[in-house]
Amino acid sequence: MNKKFKIIVEYDGSAYHGWQRQKTDPSVQEAIETALATITGTRLTLTGSGRTDAGVHALGQAAHFSCDTRMKAGELHKGLNSLLPEDIVIRDCRQVPESFHARFDVRRKTYQYRILNRPLPAAIGRQYLWQIRRPLDADAMSRGLAYIVGTHDFKAFEGTGSPRAHTEREIFRAEIEKEPEGVLAINIEGNGFLRFMVRNIVGTLVDVGTGKRMPEDIQRILASKDRSRAGATAPPQGLFLVRVDYE
Amino acid sequence: MNKKFKIIVEYDGSAYHGWQRQKTDPSVQEAIETALATITGTRLTLTGSGRTDAGVHALGQAAHFSCDTRMKAGELHKGLNSLLPEDIVIRDCRQVPESFHARFDVRRKTYQYRILNRPLPAAIGRQYLWQIRRPLDADAMSRGLAYIVGTHDFKAFEGTGSPRAHTEREIFRAEIEKEPEGVLAINIEGNGFLRFMVRNIVGTLVDVGTGKRMPEDIQRILASKDRSRAGATAPPQGLFLVRVDYE
Repeated sequence: MNKKFKIIVEYDGSAYHGWQRQKTDPSVQEAIETALATITGTRLTLTGSGRTDAGVHALGQAAHFSCDTRMKAGELHKGLNSLLPEDIVIRDCRQVPESFHARFDVRRKTYQYRILNRPLPAAIGRQYLWQIRRPLDADAMSRGLAYIVGTHDFKAFEGTGSPRAHTEREIFRAEIEKEPEGVLAINIEGNGFLRFMVRNIVGTLVDVGTGKRMPEDIQRILASKDRSRAGATAPPQGLFLVRVDYE
Repeated sequence: MNKKFKIIVEYDGSAYHGWQRQKTDPSVQEAIETALATITGTRLTLTGSGRTDAGVHALGQAAHFSCDTRMKAGELHKGLNSLLPEDIVIRDCRQVPESFHARFDVRRKTYQYRILNRPLPAAIGRQYLWQIRRPLDADAMSRGLAYIVGTHDFKAFEGTGSPRAHTEREIFRAEIEKEPEGVLAINIEGNGFLRFMVRNIVGTLVDVGTGKRMPEDIQRILASKDRSRAGATAPPQGLFLVRVDYE
């Protein structure tokens, strides 16, 4: 009997060339597809809510697959976690209606970018942070970040070489949280994200934090739709896809 | 001019065969000694507050070294952090009196052992946790843990094949903290620790948490001075040497 399943996936992206299956490099999608093939005896295709780039982590990536099986979601869940490597964990697995689509039905994605803002690097947890030694003005960064909330054309913050049908996206929430030990957590929720969009926004925001740019520059860069106006792309290891919400 | 320096070291022990220099395997001590040799041009010996075992982490290991140098502590500090691999960070470096000794002068060591108590493993941060799937009774564990506070002969919790002159140690504080997401942090402070002592206490305490043993068994095991009465050794990756205090 053909069934459709939705899974929620946590992964440490350090060892992977991103979510998406590659010709040779290891990917999270391929690791899960390989485990599914072992369990079900057939080669299945996993459809994610979208890609995550090489080195980016996830606490709650979502994906679906269809499968002609008598197995229940709970059995698949256990089987997957027993076969997957330690850096990939299936947090949830449930049967969904045939109409569900992990990419097309996304209503909201939540990302978090973690900056360690202090002169001293961290040995413990360094895989999950971007260290900025110079002191950052978190208030200026917050003011700059506020300009991305709402519906905008994010072309200026899109990675080069990744043209999309349209580059308008809606951001529902964008906030900076100060955590202990000099960690700044930048939380961004939106209906969708362009390639490198969060990392390009964070890279530009760090320029605001160091005083190289003004908070209002974020607005000007957005309006310019010109990638060359924005700052550098923040490195992948600070970025987490926290959750994906559907209807 | 001969000077003595004290350093505070944070390290991710995952890639190391412990603190202590080994014939072939990489160690934290050797990595720092190699960096010191590059900076000072001479081969120095680093004296730690004590060993940490393979795979154990530190937030605040302490060590000293003597060196005939004109360099100031701040220069050595910067030089070390620029040469050391990412998983070792010198948190502090200062000149100390010739009489200071990183091992003999220890007054207190603080360890933390981190357990993830939930059915679902973690992909993010799994390097820093011991996962126990069965639910643990943290209150029973706390009652058991209380028996180690005070001065006791900890022979029953010492690793085999590591005889010491005497096996009496004083524990000043021992507490379990409940953190979000099912993490139990076991904090133990004492004037010194035998080899595997914290990990053997934690392994036994987990038996109390699952109901396999009673809290009072900790007292009986202590009194027996018999290693075979205690539980299994908890794995290294959950253990952190948090800090070392001197006079």
